[in-house]
Amino acid sequence: MSALSEGLTQILIPIAALVGIGFALLQWFLVSKVKVASHDSSNGYKEKLIETDEDEEEEGIDNLEVSMKCAEIQHAISVGATSFLFTEYKYLGIFMGVFGIIIFLFLGSVKGFSTESEPCTYNLGNTCKPALANALFSTIAFLLGALTSVLSGFLGMKIATYANARTTLEARKGVGKAFITAFRSGAVMGFLLAANGLLVLYISINLFKLYYGDDWEGLYESITGYGLGGSSMALFGRVGGGIYTKAADVGADLVGKVERNIPEDDPRNPAVIADNVGDNVGDIAGMGSDLFGSYAESSCAALFVASISSFGISHDFTAMSYPLIISSMGIVVCLITTLFATDLFEIKKVSEIEPSLKRQLLISTVLMTAGIAVVSFFALPSEFTLYNFGTEKEVKNWHLFFCVAIGLWAGLVIGYTTEYYTSNAYSPVQDVADACRTGAATNVIFGLALGYKSVIIPIFAIAIAIYVSFSLAAMYGIAVAALGMLSTIATGLAIDAYGPISDNAGGIAEMAGMSHKIRERTDALDAAGNTTAAIGKGFAIGSAALVSLALFGAYVSRAGIKAVDVLTPKVFIGLIVGAMLPYWFSAMTMKSVGSAALKMVEEVRRQFNTIPGLMEGRAKPDYANCVKISTDASLREMIPPGALVMLTPLIAGTFFGVETLAGVLAGSLVSGVQVAISASNTGGAWDNAKKYIEAGASEHAKALGPKGSDCHKAAVIGDTIGDPLKDTSGPSLNILIKLMAVESLVFAPFFAAHGGLIFKWL
Amino acid sequence: MSALSEGLTQILIPIAALVGIGFALLQWFLVSKVKVASHDSSNGYKEKLIETDEDEEEEGIDNLEVSMKCAEIQHAISVGATSFLFTEYKYLGIFMGVFGIIIFLFLGSVKGFSTESEPCTYNLGNTCKPALANALFSTIAFLLGALTSVLSGFLGMKIATYANARTTLEARKGVGKAFITAFRSGAVMGFLLAANGLLVLYISINLFKLYYGDDWEGLYESITGYGLGGSSMALFGRVGGGIYTKAADVGADLVGKVERNIPEDDPRNPAVIADNVGDNVGDIAGMGSDLFGSYAESSCAALFVASISSFGISHDFTAMSYPLIISSMGIVVCLITTLFATDLFEIKKVSEIEPSLKRQLLISTVLMTAGIAVVSFFALPSEFTLYNFGTEKEVKNWHLFFCVAIGLWAGLVIGYTTEYYTSNAYSPVQDVADACRTGAATNVIFGLALGYKSVIIPIFAIAIAIYVSFSLAAMYGIAVAALGMLSTIATGLAIDAYGPISDNAGGIAEMAGMSHKIRERTDALDAAGNTTAAIGKGFAIGSAALVSLALFGAYVSRAGIKAVDVLTPKVFIGLIVGAMLPYWFSAMTMKSVGSAALKMVEEVRRQFNTIPGLMEGRAKPDYANCVKISTDASLREMIPPGALVMLTPLIAGTFFGVETLAGVLAGSLVSGVQVAISASNTGGAWDNAKKYIEAGASEHAKALGPKGSDCHKAAVIGDTIGDPLKDTSGPSLNILIKLMAVESLVFAPFFAAHGGLIFKWL
Repeated sequence: MSALSEGLTQILIPIAALVGIGFALLQWFLVSKVKVASHDSSNGYKEKLIETDEDEEEEGIDNLEVSMKCAEIQHAISVGATSFLFTEYKYLGIFMGVFGIIIFLFLGSVKGFSTESEPCTYNLGNTCKPALANALFSTIAFLLGALTSVLSGFLGMKIATYANARTTLEARKGVGKAFITAFRSGAVMGFLLAANGLLVLYISINLFKLYYGDDWEGLYESITGYGLGGSSMALFGRVGGGIYTKAADVGADLVGKVERNIPEDDPRNPAVIADNVGDNVGDIAGMGSDLFGSYAESSCAALFVASISSFGISHDFTAMSYPLIISSMGIVVCLITTLFATDLFEIKKVSEIEPSLKRQLLISTVLMTAGIAVVSFFALPSEFTLYNFGTEKEVKNWHLFFCVAIGLWAGLVIGYTTEYYTSNAYSPVQDVADACRTGAATNVIFGLALGYKSVIIPIFAIAIAIYVSFSLAAMYGIAVAALGMLSTIATGLAIDAYGPISDNAGGIAEMAGMSHKIRERTDALDAAGNTTAAIGKGFAIGSAALVSLALFGAYVSRAGIKAVDVLTPKVFIGLIVGAMLPYWFSAMTMKSVGSAALKMVEEVRRQFNTIPGLMEGRAKPDYANCVKISTDASLREMIPPGALVMLTPLIAGTFFGVETLAGVLAGSLVSGVQVAISASNTGGAWDNAKKYIEAGASEHAKALGPKGSDCHKAAVIGDTIGDPLKDTSGPSLNILIKLMAVESLVFAPFFAAHGGLIFKWL
Repeated sequence: MSALSEGLTQILIPIAALVGIGFALLQWFLVSKVKVASHDSSNGYKEKLIETDEDEEEEGIDNLEVSMKCAEIQHAISVGATSFLFTEYKYLGIFMGVFGIIIFLFLGSVKGFSTESEPCTYNLGNTCKPALANALFSTIAFLLGALTSVLSGFLGMKIATYANARTTLEARKGVGKAFITAFRSGAVMGFLLAANGLLVLYISINLFKLYYGDDWEGLYESITGYGLGGSSMALFGRVGGGIYTKAADVGADLVGKVERNIPEDDPRNPAVIADNVGDNVGDIAGMGSDLFGSYAESSCAALFVASISSFGISHDFTAMSYPLIISSMGIVVCLITTLFATDLFEIKKVSEIEPSLKRQLLISTVLMTAGIAVVSFFALPSEFTLYNFGTEKEVKNWHLFFCVAIGLWAGLVIGYTTEYYTSNAYSPVQDVADACRTGAATNVIFGLALGYKSVIIPIFAIAIAIYVSFSLAAMYGIAVAALGMLSTIATGLAIDAYGPISDNAGGIAEMAGMSHKIRERTDALDAAGNTTAAIGKGFAIGSAALVSLALFGAYVSRAGIKAVDVLTPKVFIGLIVGAMLPYWFSAMTMKSVGSAALKMVEEVRRQFNTIPGLMEGRAKPDYANCVKISTDASLREMIPPGALVMLTPLIAGTFFGVETLAGVLAGSLVSGVQVAISASNTGGAWDNAKKYIEAGASEHAKALGPKGSDCHKAAVIGDTIGDPLKDTSGPSLNILIKLMAVESLVFAPFFAAHGGLIFKWL
C-alpha cells in the first residue's frame, strides 16, 4: 500500500485546493487596490475613485477625466461580455438538458433500465451497482462538469474585464506596474480554475462514494461524465467565442485599418467594443473552459484506468487518488512560481517581459519535477499492476514518475518551440516579415510554410512522450503524462490570460485617448502576450493529444475491443474519415468567421457612410449594433460545427460500431493535432510579423516599415487571414479530438451493447 | 481455371498495347498536319511552313510573320524544356544508380547474399529462387520502372511543346479546331503512356519468367521494383517540375501583373519563357510520371497479392494477368471514348468545351463498366481463394467486378466533385470571388475554407470504395479498385494534358502579338483546362490513396506483420509521425517555391530597371537568366523533400522496425490525402475565381471586375498563393504516400529480417 494514509490524502487534497483559492483571492485583492474611477457600480464592486497609490513618476496620474473614461470603456466591455455569455449560456443550458437526457437514456438502455445489481466486469467475484445507476450518475457528473466549465469561463471573463482598465491605469506609472497587474489578474484566473476543478472533482468522488461504496468500477465509470461535461461546454465556448471575437476583429480591421487608415482600437471604429468584448469571451472564457476540460478529462481517464487496475481492485484510495495529488502538488508549485514573477523579480524594461514569462514556464517545470518525485514516492505503492487491454502490466512507482515527468517536459518543449516559431525575436517570423517585401502572396506562402514546419518538433515531443509513458505504464501512463503536462496549469493559464488582458488594456488606452507613451507600454505588453497566447495554445493542443489518446485507450477497454487493427476495413474507413473531420470542422468555422466578418464590414461601412461627423470624432458610432452582429453570428454559427463534433461519435458508434468509431478517434487525433498546431502558429507568426514591422526595432524591421507602407499592408493581410486560423478553427480542434474521445468513452457501454446497426443489417 | 486460355492472354495484352501506341501515332500524325513555319528543325521534325489547310474563315491565316513568330517561341519553349529535363535526368541518373545499389545490397543481405534456393513462403512444399536473385531482379525492375517513367514524362513534354503553337495557329480558324488539336495532342500522351506502361510491364514479366520459371512468388516480388522505380522518378519530376514552374509563374506575376500592370504572358516579361517552359516540365512531364507511377504500383500491388493467392499457387496465368487485361480493356475503351470528342461531336462554341471534356469522363466510365464485366467473366475462374493476412478468403469473379467498378465510379465521383469546387460555373468559386469585395484576406479565408470542405465527398467516396472492395476481396480488392480508377488513364491524361497545352497556346498567342479574338479563344480553352487539371489531380490523389493502401497491405503481408494495432506504442508513434510528414514535406516545397520566386522577382525587377526600352517593347529581355534561376532552384530544392520521402521508410524500418513503419504509412496516407485534396482544390478555386472576375461573363462577375479593379487585385493575390499549393506541394503529396508504401514493400524482407535496431538495443 501507499506510504501516505487514506486519511491524510482526504485532508491534503482539499487543503491544496483551498490554498489555491485563497491565493487567487489574495491576488484579486492586490489587483483591486488599483482604483478605477467608476460612475456607477458596473462591475458589481462598488468602488469609488481614484488613484490612491502615491507612486513615483509619470503621465497624468491624477487626470480624473482619463480615469473616468477608462471606467466607462471597461464598463461597456464588461457589460457586453457578460450579456453575451449569459445569452450563450441560455443556449448551452438547453443543450445540457437535452444531452443529459440522451446520456441517461442511452446508458440506461444498456441493460434495459434494469435496477438489478450485476457481477462486476473487472473486479471478478464481486457485485456491482446496476447500469441504470451508472446512467444516472454519469448524467449528474456530466452536469457538474458542464457547470464547473461554465463557471471557469465566466469567472475568467469577470476577472479579465475587471483587470483590463486597471492595467491601463497602472501603465501610467511604468511598464513594471502594468505587467504586475496584468499578470496577477491572470494568476487569479489560473489558480481559481485549477483549484476549482480539483475541488469539485474531489467532492463529487466522495459524494458518489456514498452510494457506490465498494463498487469503484461503477464509481469511476460514472465520473467520466465530468470530463464530457467540461469539454462539451468548452467546445461551444471556444467556437462561439472564437467566431465572436474574430468576426469583430476582422471586420474592424478590414474597414478601419485597411480602408479608413485609422489605428487599431480607434474609438471611431464602430466594431471596436465588439472586438474588445471578443477578446474576453473568446481568448479568456473559451480558453478557460478548454483547459479546464483537458484537466478534467485527463483526470477522469487516469481514474478510470486506475479503477480497473490493482489500485481499484485492492481499494487503495491514496494510490487511486494519485492524479488528484499530482494536481494538488501542481497548485503549490505554481504558487511558488508566481512569486518569482510578482515579488522576487521586478520588471523594469520592456525587453524583460517575454523572458520573465518564459522563465515562469521553466521554473514551474523544474519545481514540478521534484514535486512529482515526492508524490510518486509517497502516494504510490512501490509495485503494482495496471490494466493493459485485457492483460496486466507490472509497474513500479518510479515508472510513473517518468510518465508524469515526460509529459511535463514535453509540454515545455512544445511551449519553447511555439515561442521560437511565433516570436518576432527569431528568424522564422522575421523571414515571414521579409517576404512582405514582395507582397501579401509571398507573405502568406511563407506563413503557411512556417506553420507546417512548426509541427515537426511538437509531434516528435508528443511521440516520444507517448512511447515512453505507454511502454512504462500502458494507458495509465499516457493519462498521467497528460496530467503532467497540465500539472502546471495555474501558471500556464496565468501567462495565457495575461495576453488578452494586455490586449484589452491597450485598446482602452487608445480609446481613452491616453498618451503615446502609455500606448507604447501596453503594446509591448501585448506583443509578449501574442507569443504567450501561442504558447498557451501549444500546451492546450499537446495536452489534448495525450488526453485524447488516454481517453481513446479507456474507450477501447470499456467497449471491450481487443485490437484496433488498421488493416480491417471497418477500422480503416473510420481512420480516413476521422482524419477528414478536422478539415470539415475547420471549413465550417473559417467560413462562419468569413461570413460574419463580411456582415460586420458592411455594418461598419454603413455607419461610416451614414453617421455624419463620425470620422472627425464629432459623433459616436453605434457600438451596440456591431455587438449584436457578432453575438447573433456566433450563436447561430456555433451550432453546425458543434453538432458535427457531438453527433459524429453517436452516429459512428450506433450505426458503424465500436471498431469504426475507434478508427475515427485515432484518425481525428493524428490529423487534428497537425492542423491545430500549424493553424495556431501560422496565425501567431503573421500577427507578430506585422508587429515586428510596426515596432521597427531593428534595421531590418525599419527597412520594411513604417505603418502604412506596402510591406505593412501586406503584413496586415496576413494577420487578418491568421485571425480565424489562430483563434477560431485552430484552438477549437483540440476540443474536437478530446470531446469525441470522451464522448465515446461515456457512451461505450451502449455502443458495445447495441452499436453497429448497419453492419448488423448487411 | 479461367475461360480465356493462357495463349490468348499472351496475345491479347500486347495487341492492346500496340493498338494504343498505333492510335497515339495516328493522333500525332493528325496534329502534325497543322504546319508551323519553322526557321530551323527545332523539334527534330523537319517541316517547312505554312498553313496548308484551306479552311473557312478568319484572322490572318496567311500571315507568315505571325506563324514565324509562333515557331520561334515554340522553339524557345521546347529547347528550354528539353534542356531542363536533360539536366534533371542527369541528377536522376545518379540517383537511380545509387538507389539501385542500395536496393541490391539491402535485399541481398536478407539471407547474407546466399545463392542457395529456399523453401517458398506461401507455396508450401516447393522450392523458390534465392533471395539474392530477388535482390538482383528487384533492382532491374526498379531501373526499368524508372526509365519508363522518365520516358513517359519526356515524351509527354515533347508532344506538348510540339502541339502548343499548333493549337495557337488553329485558334485562328475557330475554337473548335483549336480544341481538337489540343485534345488530340493530349490523347497522344495519354495513349502512349498507358500502352507503354502496359507493354514494358508485360515484357518484363515474361522475361523474368525465363529465369523464375515456376517460382511466381519470387517473380512478382521482384516485379514490385517496377512500381518503386516509376514512383521515385515521379517524385523528383513532380517536385522539381513543380518548383520550376511555380517559381517562374509567381515571379512573373508578382512583377508583371502586380507591379508593372502588363498582361500575363506579355513578351516584355523576362520570366515569360521560363513560365511556359514550366507548364511543360511540371504539369506535363511531372503529371505523366506521376500517373504512370500510380498505374505501375497498383498493377504491382495486385500482382504481388495474386501471386501468393490461389492464382499464383495454381499457376493460372490468365487470372494472374487480370490487372493487365483490365488495363488492356481500358485502352480499347478510351480509344472509343476519344472518338466521341474528336470525330462524333464537334465543338462550335466556347461554352461546349467544358461539358465535352466532362462527357469524356462519363462515357469512358460507362463503357469501362461493361468492359470490366466482360474481363471479369472471361479472365477469372468463377471461384477462387485470395490471401488475406495469413487467412484465406473465398471470392467469386463477380466480387472482383464490383471491386474494380467501385474504384472506377469512385474516381468519377471525385472528378465531378472536384469540378464542382473548382469550376467558376458553380457557387463555391463564385463565393470565393465575391469575398474579394472585402479584399485579399477574406478571399484567402474563403478559399482555404473551400479547400477544406472539398475534402468531404472524395473521402467518403474513397472510404466506401475501400470498404466494399476490402470486404469483398481483401487487399486484392483494394489493388484492383485502384486499377479500376486508373483503367481509363488514357482519357484522364488526355483531358489533363489538354490543360497546359492550351495554357501554352494562349501564352504563344500573347507573345506573338496575335489578335484579341484569338487570345479570347485560347483563354476559353485554358479556363476549361484549369478545371480539368484539378480533376486530373483529384484522380491522381484518389487513386494514390487506394494504391497506397493496397501497397500497404502487400507490405504488411510481406513483412509478416500479424496486425497493425493502433493501441501499441510502436504503431501509434508511427501513426502520428506519419501524419506529420505531409506537413513537413509541404513546408519544404512551399518555402522552396517562395524563395525561388523571391529570386525571380529580383531578377525580373532588375531587368526592367536596367534594360533600357524594355517596358516600351524596344528591347528584348534576357529570358535565359530567368530560365537559369528556375532550373537551379528546382534542382537544388528538390533534393531535401526527395530525401525526406526516400529516407523515411529506410530509417523507420531499419531503426524502429516493421510495426512503426506500418504506422508511418497509415498515418501519412490518411493525413496526406486530406492535405493534397484541399491544397489542389483551394489553388484551383482561386485561379478560377480570378478568371471569373476577368471574364466578366455574368452580372455578378461584372460587378467585381474588370481587370485591375481592387477585387481583381485581391483575386490575383489568392491565385498567386494557390500556385505552389495546387502545382507543387498538393500534387507531390500523392507521390509521397505512394512512394513510401512501395518502397516499404520492396524493402520489407530486409526490415523483417534486420529492422528495429533501436528497440533491439533498448
